[in-house]
Order: sequence, then C-alpha cells, then structure tokens
Amino acid sequence: MSHPAPTHLQDFALGQTFVSTQYEMTSEAIKAFAAQFDPQPFHLDEAAAVDTLFAGLAASGWHTASVTMRLLVGSGLAVEGGLVGAGAELRWPRPTRPGDVLRVISEVTDIKTSPARPARGLVTLKSETRNQHGDIVQLMTSRLSVPVRVE
Amino acid sequence: MSHPAPTHLQDFALGQTFVSTQYEMTSEAIKAFAAQFDPQPFHLDEAAAVDTLFAGLAASGWHTASVTMRLLVGSGLAVEGGLVGAGAELRWPRPTRPGDVLRVISEVTDIKTSPARPARGLVTLKSETRNQHGDIVQLMTSRLSVPVRVE
Repeated sequence: MSHPAPTHLQDFALGQTFVSTQYEMTSEAIKAFAAQFDPQPFHLDEAAAVDTLFAGLAASGWHTASVTMRLLVGSGLAVEGGLVGAGAELRWPRPTRPGDVLRVISEVTDIKTSPARPARGLVTLKSETRNQHGDIVQLMTSRLSVPVRVE
Repeated sequence: MSHPAPTHLQDFALGQTFVSTQYEMTSEAIKAFAAQFDPQPFHLDEAAAVDTLFAGLAASGWHTASVTMRLLVGSGLAVEGGLVGAGAELRWPRPTRPGDVLRVISEVTDIKTSPARPARGLVTLKSETRNQHGDIVQLMTSRLSVPVRVE
C-alpha cells in the first residue's frame, strides 16, 4: 500500500503498487455463487466435478473476479467518489480451488487525462489475483475513472 | 437460439446468434451482491447513492457480469463439457438499475483451432447485455474453449 492512499488522479504514479488483504474461498461459497450465477457441474459439486475439464471443484471465473473486486475495495485505493471501472480485461490462467486464499497485487500501468473531460482521468491497473502458493488465478487489466483534484 | 444447440466446435458458425431468457435485477439482489463483493455506497443504499457519480442505486458491474453468465448458461449454448471461458473483455456503457430486466444477445465473431491443441478450439462470442428499454448495460467479448467433435 502506498502512503498516503491516492484519492485523486494527481496521487497516482506509473509503477505504483497496491497489495490487498486476503480472502479464503471456501467450498460452500464456491457452490453458493455457482448456484446463483454459474450453475455448471464443475462449480457446484465435488463428485460431479471429477470427470470434467477442471478435474475437481473450481470456482466460477466470475466468482474470482467478484472476490478480486472485494479485495480491491479496501486495498489502499481510496479514490474520492469510489472505485468506478470503465471496463476490464480478464484471463483465468488456472482455476481457483476450495481452500485457496486469494490476494490481489495491482500496479498502475497507465494514467490518462482527456481534454474533452478535464474533471476526470483514467488510471489503468494491472491486477494479479494469486493463491497462497503464489500461482496466478486471474489476470485483470482495468480502467478506473478517477477525479482530478482542483488545485 | 440456433437449432440444434451447438455442442462442439463444428456446430458453430460466424454470425450465429443466441438470445437468452430474462433476469430481473431487484434492489435487494443489487445490495446483497454489493455487500458481499463490492461494498460501495452507490451499490449498497438508495439514499447514499444519490450524491454519487451514479446519481442513484446501481448494480456492481461484476453483478451485471455474473448475471450475464447466468443467462449464457441456458441460452442455447449446450457446449459439451460446459461453458468454459479462457478470458473476457468487459465494458459497462451504462449502469444496471433496480427493476431492470436483463437479456443477453450473443454473436459468434471468431472461431479458431490450434494445431498445438487439436482437441479443442476457441469460439469468440460478442455478448450485449440489454435492459428492458434495449439499452446496453454491458458489452462483453469472451473466448470459450469448445471441444472438437471426433468424426
């Protein structure tokens, strides 16, 4: 976490990094999320998951993405007005498994202002969601809309 | 929905479209998702949301993405072994609001095979998530891993 926490566009710098707290993915949470949003055998049931591409219970990628958001909110990104994403790109290099403890490491890779909209800028954040072994379960590039401080 | 539902790579064609069923986003569901995954005032509370960038309660983009997945599972995409995404790009042109009834319209925009991995191919799907007024609340391009039928 940077110090002090960035609240406006001027507080961000290329290469700045943010490390989140941790979040444990339980088997129960994986199944509950899947029942609501991604009801497929490999996300719903240990036994049914064995003979699938995942060879065992795995979290929905959208569950991993949602937990990543939860970890980003409260990772030292104290953007004035909130963390508002304009868009994101996601990849899931490997599944999130029951018992995995996730952490998000983010880096500022771009900062853009727009002459057409001087009050806000776009901060590009590259976020790695890693499990307790350090394996990357999600790679995300997101663009945050961040207010410009009036000086 | 195409007929019959595509189960293998050979069943997909460029320009093929899929229309999902509908899903209503209630105020209660928006707040429950936010409390778990995106606890920010504009996703949690009508009154607190008024003076934010969203000017009223809005669903987390990750909630819209998760509901989109729910609609894709069971939209006529009966891929053998399940709907497994390799990655996705998301944009949220406007917020999802309480009472919005969402529907997903998807089109096949690319089909790729890989000499290195002949058993599976990649189908690129462009999915528009629209509300009851036809407004686009999410644009997603996703890549699905789809098995090749052994003939």
